[in-house]
Amino acid sequence: MNQLEELKNLLAEISDLTAVGQLVSWDKETQMPKGAAATRANHMATMARLLHQKNTAPRLRELIEALEPDLKNADSLDGALLRLLRLDFDRKSKLPTDFVTEFAAARATSGSVWEASRHKNDWAAFKPHLEKMFNFARRAADFYGFDSHPYDALLWDFDPGLKTTDIKQIFADVRAFTVPLLEKIVAAGENVDYSVLTRHYPLEAQRAFGLEVAQAFGYDLNRGRLDVTAHPFATNFGKDDVRITTRFDPHYFPMAFYGTLHESGHAMYEQNTADELRRTPLARGAWSTAHESQSRLWENLVGRSSGFWQHWFAIAQKHFPEALHDLDASTMYKLVNRVKPSFIRVEADELTYNLHIMLRFELELAVFEEKIKIAELPEAWNAKMQEYLGVVPPDYSSGIMQDIHWSGAMFAYFPTYSLGNILSVQLFEKAGSQMGDLNAMFARGEYKPLLHWLTHAVLRHGKTYLPPELIERATGSSLSAKPYLGYLERKFSGIYGL
Amino acid sequence: MNQLEELKNLLAEISDLTAVGQLVSWDKETQMPKGAAATRANHMATMARLLHQKNTAPRLRELIEALEPDLKNADSLDGALLRLLRLDFDRKSKLPTDFVTEFAAARATSGSVWEASRHKNDWAAFKPHLEKMFNFARRAADFYGFDSHPYDALLWDFDPGLKTTDIKQIFADVRAFTVPLLEKIVAAGENVDYSVLTRHYPLEAQRAFGLEVAQAFGYDLNRGRLDVTAHPFATNFGKDDVRITTRFDPHYFPMAFYGTLHESGHAMYEQNTADELRRTPLARGAWSTAHESQSRLWENLVGRSSGFWQHWFAIAQKHFPEALHDLDASTMYKLVNRVKPSFIRVEADELTYNLHIMLRFELELAVFEEKIKIAELPEAWNAKMQEYLGVVPPDYSSGIMQDIHWSGAMFAYFPTYSLGNILSVQLFEKAGSQMGDLNAMFARGEYKPLLHWLTHAVLRHGKTYLPPELIERATGSSLSAKPYLGYLERKFSGIYGL
Repeated sequence: MNQLEELKNLLAEISDLTAVGQLVSWDKETQMPKGAAATRANHMATMARLLHQKNTAPRLRELIEALEPDLKNADSLDGALLRLLRLDFDRKSKLPTDFVTEFAAARATSGSVWEASRHKNDWAAFKPHLEKMFNFARRAADFYGFDSHPYDALLWDFDPGLKTTDIKQIFADVRAFTVPLLEKIVAAGENVDYSVLTRHYPLEAQRAFGLEVAQAFGYDLNRGRLDVTAHPFATNFGKDDVRITTRFDPHYFPMAFYGTLHESGHAMYEQNTADELRRTPLARGAWSTAHESQSRLWENLVGRSSGFWQHWFAIAQKHFPEALHDLDASTMYKLVNRVKPSFIRVEADELTYNLHIMLRFELELAVFEEKIKIAELPEAWNAKMQEYLGVVPPDYSSGIMQDIHWSGAMFAYFPTYSLGNILSVQLFEKAGSQMGDLNAMFARGEYKPLLHWLTHAVLRHGKTYLPPELIERATGSSLSAKPYLGYLERKFSGIYGL
Repeated sequence: MNQLEELKNLLAEISDLTAVGQLVSWDKETQMPKGAAATRANHMATMARLLHQKNTAPRLRELIEALEPDLKNADSLDGALLRLLRLDFDRKSKLPTDFVTEFAAARATSGSVWEASRHKNDWAAFKPHLEKMFNFARRAADFYGFDSHPYDALLWDFDPGLKTTDIKQIFADVRAFTVPLLEKIVAAGENVDYSVLTRHYPLEAQRAFGLEVAQAFGYDLNRGRLDVTAHPFATNFGKDDVRITTRFDPHYFPMAFYGTLHESGHAMYEQNTADELRRTPLARGAWSTAHESQSRLWENLVGRSSGFWQHWFAIAQKHFPEALHDLDASTMYKLVNRVKPSFIRVEADELTYNLHIMLRFELELAVFEEKIKIAELPEAWNAKMQEYLGVVPPDYSSGIMQDIHWSGAMFAYFPTYSLGNILSVQLFEKAGSQMGDLNAMFARGEYKPLLHWLTHAVLRHGKTYLPPELIERATGSSLSAKPYLGYLERKFSGIYGL
């Protein structure tokens, strides 16, 4: 066996164990009996330790070093593999195995506590675990090392190379654009009766309609499935097993529906990485900004387009004959694009969504900069909600405890949602420039050509390229908020007749 | 850290990985999308290889050898641990790691093919995989080594120390008793209208009633759950996560119901091993005969008793008001104890059940003795069905392809069902001799005292004792078919008025 084969065998083993670890997490969220939480934390800690040992094994280092001279500049998959491995290996080697093991166990416990205490609005139960998560993350940042800000060290996991200062600049631009537009929309007043969204939408019909649309987009259920969880997510155990979750409210249509489309976007990314990347670290979507560009694209640029509802409204009426009998496609388009400041990020409209993200980003920074204590976070959350959105959540469940991310120490992830929004429009406009009028295609019920374009431009590459190169290759330019802001301006001026 | 602590840390890691491996299998049977079969076979092979490496690691051997002199004769948990470890280590070390890895991948694929081809009645698709399974098992037997029969080498996994010749002797006795009793029953004719069992029993009510009974027995759903699979089974990922499966037929009541009680018996075993055995190899039910004694006890000695139906019939009527409106408890007792030769083992009555087991045992022996080829198995199956039961299955699905076991190379398992029947009556009579009239307790709705007795006598010990010692301690005697045959004689003479 030559060294490259030996390396690929090691990577296949790591890939399998990573998938199994993901499955253990998925099961915890979707299937596990409540009494198993402590046992499961042990399992997850053991898997994390084992994976860390495999990912930082001396033999792996030897093989990387032996193969690097020949391959590191090669314009081939093997070259990309060696480049990614070097980055991964160096980064992972900075964390001590015991730290990784303890972190994994604490994260599992924190997640269980969050899930149990969230619906009881029990901040006091969750607070010590959140404190631990911030402490673990801060220690991880110290192990990784950073030049100017510990947040930079954490950002690497979600968008390698991205800096805190970049995000601040982009967010300042987005905010400067959003606030006056939001004021104009609020001043314009409501032009539709939104209460129809809170009619009765039977759960089974919601599930069936959501999956029908997701499959029309291209989500392959022979290699996927939909479950119900406290917080929707997508996960995968290889490209042939990509699962999504959502949550249902029988008296609010958009929640499960757009949640399903969002997670399907993530799922289609994973289902369409190239076959030749299988069982290598390249076989994953290229970090979080690119991933969120796909989820937000299918959720918003497709699922909240006028063309989409021209095609799907009649089908939706068959699924929800009572709730939708007196509506039409153009009203539905307005309904699902209502701009209204609200508490829950994942249900926010496209305009206020980014303000939710900024709030989280700023609070995370404040904690890492030690400008705020964990005990002060709920108050700070509410103050920022008041400042940015003019509303204050009535309880922790609709406020600081709404998202799963912090319970699992996923700090520095939130910004990639807004960056994903930005990238999604760059990709969408590039696709449109090559494919013609996408909205007209959606109105004809044609979605797979767009998935095909995205697969060619982005999805198939997995982690072959770092984000800046991937974006440049796919769009011909670097990440830029301008197309996104133009899109928001056009769309909401149209809907609200500004 | 001293050597015993180091050993226990290694064992805790192995215990966690074993649990994760079980979870991967459970997911495959219950949740996995069909398109993931090939990927999952890789995952299972990698987990098997890793576990085999951990189970046969040089450091583990060193620790066992260092600790054995002090502990191997100790009357303590640590002593029992060392004794079990020595047996496990020596046995597992006989298999090469590559063999274990290949076997695991082939087993996963075989299982997927069985599941897909069984309901299509496609023997041709399954046959080559069954052939592989027998070949792998035969090679395993050769690696393990044996004195007189390769089957002995395989029996060890399910009942260490049990010999093929022992089984032959016991089965000869059971058969000599069963055949004339069965003839008398058939001659007596039917005394109830069994068609009521095929009325409409709504699935949700079946599920609710089955779980209500299982929980009354003591199955803790906070540490368990019920899913639907092609073949019912129980599995566990530690004592706090013990899951069962069943399958439902809306027009046949006993299938899901007694399947649920059977698997609950397995589950209660695992849920009630002692806390101090956690994360050690002792924390599992003591091999298959003891395990089946619990599943068969709760299914038959409890669930098919007259006292059981005196308590539960009125409750069942509330769950199935249409199907049961014109019946009573004593009729129900006769209905669920109908003796009638049939095709499906797991639905067979207590008397003919053992004939199904003998058939499988004899065919397995014939293959390992090279007296029969795989291609000839279906014909041999049908010939034995005709000889033992007087019925011939109409297709492969109700014949040779009905059970999951062979698809996963679980040869030498089937005999332990009948041995479990035998042991269940020994335990039941011992419990009765200490607790008084069990049937009267069941009629009063009292089940947990029996579980408590079984926990004390058997369950809590896990694998602390080998089967002969466990049986001796619990019953005061060795395994003997006499009580079991006496029980069958009394029960069915009563029901059929012989």
